[in-house]
Amino acid sequence: MSELVNVAVDAMGGDYAPDEIVKGAMEALRESEKLKIFLVGKEELIQQQLQKYEYDKSRVEIVNATEVIEMGEPPVNAIRKKKDSSIVKAMGMVKSGTCDAYVSAGSTGANLVGGQVLVGRIKGVERPPLAPLIPTATGAALLIDCGANVDARASHLLQFAKMGSVYMEHVMGVPNPTVGLLNIGAEEDKGNALVKETYPLLQNCPDINFVGNVEARDVPAGAVDVVVCEAFVGNILLKTYEGVGATLLSQVKAGMMTSLRSKIGALLVKPALKKTLKKFDIEQYGGAPMLGLNGLVVKTHGSSKAVEIKNSILQCVLFKEQKINDKIREKIVIKDEQ
Amino acid sequence: MSELVNVAVDAMGGDYAPDEIVKGAMEALRESEKLKIFLVGKEELIQQQLQKYEYDKSRVEIVNATEVIEMGEPPVNAIRKKKDSSIVKAMGMVKSGTCDAYVSAGSTGANLVGGQVLVGRIKGVERPPLAPLIPTATGAALLIDCGANVDARASHLLQFAKMGSVYMEHVMGVPNPTVGLLNIGAEEDKGNALVKETYPLLQNCPDINFVGNVEARDVPAGAVDVVVCEAFVGNILLKTYEGVGATLLSQVKAGMMTSLRSKIGALLVKPALKKTLKKFDIEQYGGAPMLGLNGLVVKTHGSSKAVEIKNSILQCVLFKEQKINDKIREKIVIKDEQ
Repeated sequence: MSELVNVAVDAMGGDYAPDEIVKGAMEALRESEKLKIFLVGKEELIQQQLQKYEYDKSRVEIVNATEVIEMGEPPVNAIRKKKDSSIVKAMGMVKSGTCDAYVSAGSTGANLVGGQVLVGRIKGVERPPLAPLIPTATGAALLIDCGANVDARASHLLQFAKMGSVYMEHVMGVPNPTVGLLNIGAEEDKGNALVKETYPLLQNCPDINFVGNVEARDVPAGAVDVVVCEAFVGNILLKTYEGVGATLLSQVKAGMMTSLRSKIGALLVKPALKKTLKKFDIEQYGGAPMLGLNGLVVKTHGSSKAVEIKNSILQCVLFKEQKINDKIREKIVIKDEQ
Repeated sequence: MSELVNVAVDAMGGDYAPDEIVKGAMEALRESEKLKIFLVGKEELIQQQLQKYEYDKSRVEIVNATEVIEMGEPPVNAIRKKKDSSIVKAMGMVKSGTCDAYVSAGSTGANLVGGQVLVGRIKGVERPPLAPLIPTATGAALLIDCGANVDARASHLLQFAKMGSVYMEHVMGVPNPTVGLLNIGAEEDKGNALVKETYPLLQNCPDINFVGNVEARDVPAGAVDVVVCEAFVGNILLKTYEGVGATLLSQVKAGMMTSLRSKIGALLVKPALKKTLKKFDIEQYGGAPMLGLNGLVVKTHGSSKAVEIKNSILQCVLFKEQKINDKIREKIVIKDEQ
């Protein structure tokens, strides 16, 4: 049997912890024989949940952590003080090499800070980006960066483009993924100081398939595979995506309920519609990887249920098998040193 | 009879010029007796269109302009060289006071540059923002700024907040409109350097109803009436809004067409759904005003049809009647000089 992929899971993070977290972990375990899962958190609570499932006990370990970092806590402080929290302990297991990857639905801030401080960056990576997959009409695009470090430099964006390309090609299986620079117009001279400085760097980079600027309007249609941007802008795009999607779908639902005629129609269209809209469901893609670290950190939505946790954990298997970090090292460190 | 509101209309701008532009102008003329419209562009073409309509000839004038600024032309150059273009001529009529306002579906760049260079800023206004209305679950929100001048300063954003509040209160009729600073988190310490500097300025401004940071996710639900942001970020939000809306609706439509059962259902839900989604139709709101100029400039979508042109022209009537520019002068110039 080949080596197992060891994944530390923050059992205490997110709105539905530990129930849905443990459920997702169990589902991932069933789907992949290559997994070993370390459930990190309050032992007693995890034990209670585990009793609900039949599972291969040799591939599950509980790691007791008595503290929990709450959503609202100042991240730097929390990481520093709560040494026995699930986040700090689980990240420590990646740092030490016990685990290959880590999945959490907990505090975004604490996970981003922890990723940099506890897991640590790959040598040569200036800034580790958080890169969620967003659904498009043709599949999914990687939005890189949506992290907490705003006011990025052009050299950061160049690294994002390289790391994002590696991820899309080798984890998502998109051959020669197209890279677009998120901008307010398609022309090369459009944009703010940052994108104007970044454009030629991307254009002259032989490692990526740069196709020029991409407008936010064209992202949902699937114009490019990798959308490169600074974190503030990426966050605005991501959150608008989620907000418009949620509001529009609730309007569509409400619209269907306004008359008897439309209610009957709604019953008839429901199954077909559900299937189509599932493609546009962000949970199907699992969480967002934080790239460029010594190990993989996957941050899933705070509202994650079992399916997103499962998909996030399964992502870790591919990430290790495809030796993503070796490939990132190759593109970033070696190329940059030449 | 009270004084007429004189509106210069760029008859040559947009994908459907001059047909839909003239049609929209005629519809606006029928809806408001207070309007006089100056159709600016190639006389012969405008004349051809006008022949299709019955209208009050005392309230329509054709102003011949032999040149057209195309969508792709470098704006500064075009404005400088094409003195006999519809954009330059029509804006000149606002500058000279012949017209109170101006509506165009033509080149965004040329209109933004022309607004600043030809129409000119109100004294004290540092930067005139372009402020489209975006549909929300509860009505509409003003997104200010989405213009061409990126890399704004905090003092600009403060002025945007004031101008946007005046517009929402007196043109859109929202009493004491709420103002949110677009940010990547709700907490005061979140964000990039610009928003961190802007936050206390808004908080300490007695002229606006500032309610704190607003996340992009909450904008579509109608969290605030005025969304304050820098133009690059505003453009990303606006274009994501349009892109997700268009893609999602086409997915919903496609989803309904996948089986015989769902096709029948689609027929039944269609009328109710159409009515609901009309609320979410950006065209209903007309174009985006460019605020802080000596006169009103309204930029509508390049793809505008008659209804958007009509609504944009009617906006101009309210703008003048409500003496918006006097109110902006009062908030910006006088307050700032105190």
